[in-house]
Amino acid sequence: MQASSSPALLREINCAKVFAALRGRDALRLTEIGELTGLSRPTVSQASEQLVAGGLAEYVEEEAADQPRIGRPARAVRFRRRAGYVLGIDIGPHKILAMLADLTGSVVAKKRRDDDFASSGQQVLAAVRETVTSLLKEAGIARHEVWSVTVGTPGIVDPHTRAVTFAPSLPDWNEIRLADALRRSFSAPIQVENDVNLAVIAERWLGVATGVSTVVFIQWGARVGAGLVIGDRLHRGAAGMAGEIGYLSVLDGQAGVVPDESGLGPLESRVGAGAIIEAAGSRRRRGRRADRRAEETDATAVFAAARAGDEAAAQAIDEVAARLARGLSALLLVLDPEMVVLGGGVSTAGPSLLSAIERHIEPLALAKPLLTLSALGDEATALGAVRLALTDVEDRLLPAATDPLAR
Amino acid sequence: MQASSSPALLREINCAKVFAALRGRDALRLTEIGELTGLSRPTVSQASEQLVAGGLAEYVEEEAADQPRIGRPARAVRFRRRAGYVLGIDIGPHKILAMLADLTGSVVAKKRRDDDFASSGQQVLAAVRETVTSLLKEAGIARHEVWSVTVGTPGIVDPHTRAVTFAPSLPDWNEIRLADALRRSFSAPIQVENDVNLAVIAERWLGVATGVSTVVFIQWGARVGAGLVIGDRLHRGAAGMAGEIGYLSVLDGQAGVVPDESGLGPLESRVGAGAIIEAAGSRRRRGRRADRRAEETDATAVFAAARAGDEAAAQAIDEVAARLARGLSALLLVLDPEMVVLGGGVSTAGPSLLSAIERHIEPLALAKPLLTLSALGDEATALGAVRLALTDVEDRLLPAATDPLAR
Repeated sequence: MQASSSPALLREINCAKVFAALRGRDALRLTEIGELTGLSRPTVSQASEQLVAGGLAEYVEEEAADQPRIGRPARAVRFRRRAGYVLGIDIGPHKILAMLADLTGSVVAKKRRDDDFASSGQQVLAAVRETVTSLLKEAGIARHEVWSVTVGTPGIVDPHTRAVTFAPSLPDWNEIRLADALRRSFSAPIQVENDVNLAVIAERWLGVATGVSTVVFIQWGARVGAGLVIGDRLHRGAAGMAGEIGYLSVLDGQAGVVPDESGLGPLESRVGAGAIIEAAGSRRRRGRRADRRAEETDATAVFAAARAGDEAAAQAIDEVAARLARGLSALLLVLDPEMVVLGGGVSTAGPSLLSAIERHIEPLALAKPLLTLSALGDEATALGAVRLALTDVEDRLLPAATDPLAR
Repeated sequence: MQASSSPALLREINCAKVFAALRGRDALRLTEIGELTGLSRPTVSQASEQLVAGGLAEYVEEEAADQPRIGRPARAVRFRRRAGYVLGIDIGPHKILAMLADLTGSVVAKKRRDDDFASSGQQVLAAVRETVTSLLKEAGIARHEVWSVTVGTPGIVDPHTRAVTFAPSLPDWNEIRLADALRRSFSAPIQVENDVNLAVIAERWLGVATGVSTVVFIQWGARVGAGLVIGDRLHRGAAGMAGEIGYLSVLDGQAGVVPDESGLGPLESRVGAGAIIEAAGSRRRRGRRADRRAEETDATAVFAAARAGDEAAAQAIDEVAARLARGLSALLLVLDPEMVVLGGGVSTAGPSLLSAIERHIEPLALAKPLLTLSALGDEATALGAVRLALTDVEDRLLPAATDPLAR
């Protein structure tokens, strides 16, 4: 089938209604479709025929298991969930993760590449292209079968042009016209979105925040940022800069958004993964000679040391948790969300980090939202990209009969 | 007419359509109504008859001024904007302001009472009742003609029960069941809303923020708080505590939401009207003997002194503006709104205060929203209450044909 024929097909209102009835359900008999849509039997029959011809649905012969068969088996229609695919890509400074999902959002294949892309934006772009190419090849899916692509990127995405305007964590990344560059590889529409915005979308779709109206996702790794869903809608901000809590000046002596020599904002430079390593090292240097050990170069090593009973590591984590709590409290006083989800590499420190933050937040906030750890690990952004690409397909396929999904 | 008959009347879809066409317009001929609604001439005629019988519309004989009259004058129908009224009441620690508006939202009468209600919540309530009674009496409007009432109150309003849960600026106010107490005075529905939330609604309706999708109203008086409209909707927060920036701990040495001896949160105690007086006094005491003058007991006196060239007063205002900028920058980094409106008593200091805040915000924020002064003065909350009451009437009158208004 031609991917391009399907949107035209579904512009016919009756086809769209039948399609909406089929989607998310098992095979349906024509009479059942009639009941669900209110359409007459001949109309249902004709619309189903068109959907099958267009490749979006298929006929199945249904054997009624619970009753003796009389006459012909009832003819049923089923949504062809693999009529097309969507692609979600998470581009980060240390990894690329591409996910291919069918039209129900089920991930059918993924490809990950861990690397440091320190030299140039073009190099990052080349790595993205290679990752996607090998993903499609391994999955046996042709490029024209991909109906929509969403790319997650760190940094600030202009809400109007969708260009990356500020991304200190990737080399000369704001000079890359990401959507244009990828448009050469795909005929499908391409959306560019901030990585943390995608993470909060994923948490509402498949993670810990399903059904939560106002939720904040805190991405806590080398950098710190927040993704906001307010009243069931993603809030990007007037300049795409909502949730930039890494730039808060809330600690004593801080006064400005100017990034430090590593390109970090004032709060993230004091609470990011680097700050945790630094705090642990500084405590060891202050400690007695006998307590000293090799300094950690990785925040996860600090977490492991704390779990093994190392006092300096535990204190360092607590100190950094207190600083994050200070920034988080500002966000809570402004927004009063129902839930805060902690994600990113630092959140892998686990429940003890969570309880430390809860303790430090207590005296700083009026309302106490549910504070929880992400369940999606470092796949949150890629999953959110899949969700956004799927929403794009649905918006285009079903202009007449859109039923609200978790978005 | 009976107010209670009108909602039932407008539940008829054709009546609601004709009503929606009439509202916000001058008198319309039946043919014009037909063109606007797509209804047939007999249907328009019948619906108009019903609206007139129900008191929501009236017939007018229209003289066509621009053309010679041939035969009978065309019969036209006009919305009876005074078929009913809405009441908006602003209850504050120092004033009560009640406004009565017609069904187009035009204020037809208002009554203000300035006082300090320091002794008890019951006393405040009695003053509200007296103010409303005398307003209605002077306007010659009966209680049953009031179709909806909205009350603005300081403090936190529970988003579910609509009870005031926390209001340190009014005596034992959280023990008053405000809506219940007023329900004895009115048969109309009563809404209770936070005063700053109403102010931001008013700014979008009639003030400087018309058409702005995401806007923050900063109420800056003795206390400091923010009202948020995000993506064209009022954001109250999960516990009704969104925008509580007076409780931010963002200045050096601050660490906690515990109110001070005056019941003020950490930021508002350093930037509210009291802090301005204190800062001016402290600078005078530090100043040379010859510079000393009687210390101001009112923030507006400090503003007047600054305008008259007094250096200590000007420096005090700048110092406090710097503190507010610190808190405001946290809100900007979290929300990235299109516009920030400064209102409340302190904002009367005018453009010099605004430019001081702009200067201090500059190094602290990534995105720079439009920063502007409120145009509604201390009537913003009462006007927002009128708007919310009007929205309630529209939602009940026009369930079928609601057209979106500025809300």
